[in-house]
Amino acid sequence: MDPDSVAKAFVEHYYRTFDGNRGALGGLYQDASMLTFEGAKIQGAAAIVAKLTSLPFQQCAHVISTVDCQPSGPAGGMLVFVSGSLQLAGENHALKFSQMFHLMPTPQGSFYVLNDIFRLNYA
Amino acid sequence: MDPDSVAKAFVEHYYRTFDGNRGALGGLYQDASMLTFEGAKIQGAAAIVAKLTSLPFQQCAHVISTVDCQPSGPAGGMLVFVSGSLQLAGENHALKFSQMFHLMPTPQGSFYVLNDIFRLNYA
Repeated sequence: MDPDSVAKAFVEHYYRTFDGNRGALGGLYQDASMLTFEGAKIQGAAAIVAKLTSLPFQQCAHVISTVDCQPSGPAGGMLVFVSGSLQLAGENHALKFSQMFHLMPTPQGSFYVLNDIFRLNYA
Repeated sequence: MDPDSVAKAFVEHYYRTFDGNRGALGGLYQDASMLTFEGAKIQGAAAIVAKLTSLPFQQCAHVISTVDCQPSGPAGGMLVFVSGSLQLAGENHALKFSQMFHLMPTPQGSFYVLNDIFRLNYA
């Protein structure tokens, strides 16, 4: 698969998991992973999942608008930049967001998330 | 300087240069650098500067809202994620944008931009 297809497949998998079974996102992070969520820095798969599962909403649906990707250097990583919107159950308006992922290859030929930065786009 | 201060100083320098003398941005990129600007991929410092200086506006002013940064791995790089707005001369409304930079250290103790992804936040 070309990098753009890999990035798109990752993004679809990530948000489908987020919207369907947030606790399962832990499999995509490792101990070295870091999440910055609206300015709060969280390190390690367990703490990241604890943060994501404790967000103050239960049901949500992500809609992706754009996915950009670039190789991130000699280590075989990939930078993925996403824009989209987040619809929360019971809310009329979707929240626009931007998020970046730094994916690193695993020995099994897959990727894990080393860096993850999320920001809502305030209007 | 701590990483957050380095990131903030870089971002201030980048947009001050962009708004004041766009052609001088070439010094921040190298041949391996890649820019994805609204989905268009451009490689190399010279092509990136050609793209940025050919954008269809002359005067602009960036206002930064948020700067997030994370170390990007063992090579000493840094990921910087910016949200802000872009005011074009003669336009009433500022354009919201999100942009990420992957900075890599130079032998001189500075940083260059290896990866740069820019997206306007459409409302």
